[in-house]
Amino acid sequence: MLGRGEAVTVEAARNILNFSYIPPEPEKEEISLYEALGRVLAEDIISETPLPEFPRSSMDGYAVFASDTFGASEQLPAYLKISGEIVMGEAASGPLSRGQAIAIPTGGMLPDGADAVVMLEHTQILNVGELEVVRPVAPGENVIQPGDDISAGEAAFTRGHRLRPQDLGALAGIGITRAPVFKRPKVAIINTGNEIVPAEKAPRPGQVRDVNSYILAGLVRRAGGVPVLKGIFRDEFGPIREAMGSAISECELVAITGGSSVGTRDLTEKVINDIEPGIIVHGVSVKPGKPVIIGIVSGKPVFGLPGHPVAVAVCFELFLRPLLKKISGEIDPLEALGIPGARVVEARMSRNYSSVPGREDHLGVMLKLEEGELWAYPVLGKSGLIFTLAKSHGTAVIPADRPGIAKGEKVIVRLFD
Amino acid sequence: MLGRGEAVTVEAARNILNFSYIPPEPEKEEISLYEALGRVLAEDIISETPLPEFPRSSMDGYAVFASDTFGASEQLPAYLKISGEIVMGEAASGPLSRGQAIAIPTGGMLPDGADAVVMLEHTQILNVGELEVVRPVAPGENVIQPGDDISAGEAAFTRGHRLRPQDLGALAGIGITRAPVFKRPKVAIINTGNEIVPAEKAPRPGQVRDVNSYILAGLVRRAGGVPVLKGIFRDEFGPIREAMGSAISECELVAITGGSSVGTRDLTEKVINDIEPGIIVHGVSVKPGKPVIIGIVSGKPVFGLPGHPVAVAVCFELFLRPLLKKISGEIDPLEALGIPGARVVEARMSRNYSSVPGREDHLGVMLKLEEGELWAYPVLGKSGLIFTLAKSHGTAVIPADRPGIAKGEKVIVRLFD
Repeated sequence: MLGRGEAVTVEAARNILNFSYIPPEPEKEEISLYEALGRVLAEDIISETPLPEFPRSSMDGYAVFASDTFGASEQLPAYLKISGEIVMGEAASGPLSRGQAIAIPTGGMLPDGADAVVMLEHTQILNVGELEVVRPVAPGENVIQPGDDISAGEAAFTRGHRLRPQDLGALAGIGITRAPVFKRPKVAIINTGNEIVPAEKAPRPGQVRDVNSYILAGLVRRAGGVPVLKGIFRDEFGPIREAMGSAISECELVAITGGSSVGTRDLTEKVINDIEPGIIVHGVSVKPGKPVIIGIVSGKPVFGLPGHPVAVAVCFELFLRPLLKKISGEIDPLEALGIPGARVVEARMSRNYSSVPGREDHLGVMLKLEEGELWAYPVLGKSGLIFTLAKSHGTAVIPADRPGIAKGEKVIVRLFD
Repeated sequence: MLGRGEAVTVEAARNILNFSYIPPEPEKEEISLYEALGRVLAEDIISETPLPEFPRSSMDGYAVFASDTFGASEQLPAYLKISGEIVMGEAASGPLSRGQAIAIPTGGMLPDGADAVVMLEHTQILNVGELEVVRPVAPGENVIQPGDDISAGEAAFTRGHRLRPQDLGALAGIGITRAPVFKRPKVAIINTGNEIVPAEKAPRPGQVRDVNSYILAGLVRRAGGVPVLKGIFRDEFGPIREAMGSAISECELVAITGGSSVGTRDLTEKVINDIEPGIIVHGVSVKPGKPVIIGIVSGKPVFGLPGHPVAVAVCFELFLRPLLKKISGEIDPLEALGIPGARVVEARMSRNYSSVPGREDHLGVMLKLEEGELWAYPVLGKSGLIFTLAKSHGTAVIPADRPGIAKGEKVIVRLFD
């Protein structure tokens, strides 16, 4: 059923894709920091200011000259003159003199001269503004020095970093309230099939509602992309060719879903080849998803996905999600450490499952806890059935080098987020 | 430093909170399915239609009466009359008669009478519209029956389910293009401190830029809530009291950040108590985050968070994130299975770290791969330093019952998403 070309392994398909396509530098834009959550930095960020900008107390207490407290103890306290108090958010009115102490709250700015803070607990106020100090402090003790958090000229973040909540805070802290980020990749979604009607329409006999637009739009959004819905097309060359042409010029990636019958698959190939004979993968040894076509057309990746929703979802995870990450300009430090991009758990298979050697199988599974152990129950169904995915907690992968999995064996389950 | 009340363990604080506060039923709204990704269903969804609505072929081939093929083999084929072809998206013009076969594509609607599909590969067209069938098919073979995916009257999803991409597809498949969802919880963020200036302003000596608004807004969004920024307030009773009052009436949860010095913490307590003496937790044995105050005021949870950004983030993970999940109406099936809500990895500690028995420590760590093993390097710094979090890949938790962790021991690291 594969027509021209042979199905290759998932790994081979990935390698071919990586070899054939190097994403161009994404376009940049500058946006408000409040809108930057989850966006990818387009530039290295160098802090222009030290943080903190001034020495700050990390305790409630008294700012002092550390040397004035040397040797102080319960038996032999040091006595200092209280010169006033530091007001939060303001600099001291003048420098501290030797023999003086000034009250300071946590986060307060040390006056010139002071080089340490004595904790409130280690002091006692005597009459007429005299302070008794019963423990010595070392220079710098209980003080956060200028630049302790980040120094001026230091790299705060590198280009390719995806911004998390704490990163927004860190950028705000150094005064960067507009962030240079890469534009999000636009993904064109073209759905084909004479039988497909918009989901809000009542299908006539023989017709089915559009499911794939919703799944793909959701998956693209989750992967940080912008779905561009090109609409539903009948299996006719002209309109699909036109949609594909505009999709390629407008978007960074194109996904066209179609039936997996010979005819509609051939049509997708024909449309792609009419633009450029750029098909690089003609089918992958994976279940579901085998009939997937991958091409590079006008320098953009184009995926011909089977029409079955479960196959669409599996192909997305295998190929589109990692590709979108690259296209978005993200450099993920955890990926380099071999940490999976999704939550995974280990579970025991609830039943025997036989696969075909050389083929990678993706199984929707429901998890159950039995006697303290997680079990993976395959949610079986013909691959076109969307509710197998809706009822699943995640997918178990049966690797290509395994003929199957026996009941009770452990499998890795990738959880849906 | 805790003022009134004693610090309790993290678990005790959670128990007190769960005991004192039961979220009310969230308000509902109906939204477009395209906007419903990540939202929580406010109603059970019962499918009004079976899916598929008609028997569909799962293969390219010929729809037949199965009994017409019984006994067919290469040696003794069955011969059927080809009555035409099923057009995708349309019903057959009439029923199939015994002895007939009709060409059908994958996904095509079986005509009345036909009860199975013979694969194309097991047939051959003879002259003048006669089909040779070399293998028998059983009734129902290669056919997806009406209701195989979901039947009419069956529960598609239950209230409290958070919608994933495949769920949007499943809902579209049964014609539900507007989804009844719970409104997202609104979280008021009040920042206090005489030293705090908006991030876009240049701070004068003694002043620092607002960091917590950005961190909290990002964390709230990530948790599915809507941040409502009430602004930055000086440490004065009146304006904070007013902001708190409006926050409580507008929002489902209030977070007020302030300094951890005695004075500002007392002010937060005073403001809360002026509305209602509803403080239920006066400090938690956790580092950082110890001075956190938790109250229930006018039936809404109010968190008095320390001003230190790292403590804000830790308190959010410990208390606000799980609470927001509850307030949002979500029922998470994976939580019931004991699966952590975030990606976690195991890593070896790069150095000795000593804690205090009875206190839970949260450490920002950077992960490194060394000789095939993950190592967790604590990013140390005084807890007010935001870049310790920005440089971390996740947090390691030193449980309260451990006096510390030795170099080389394994810790669980919760990764930031």
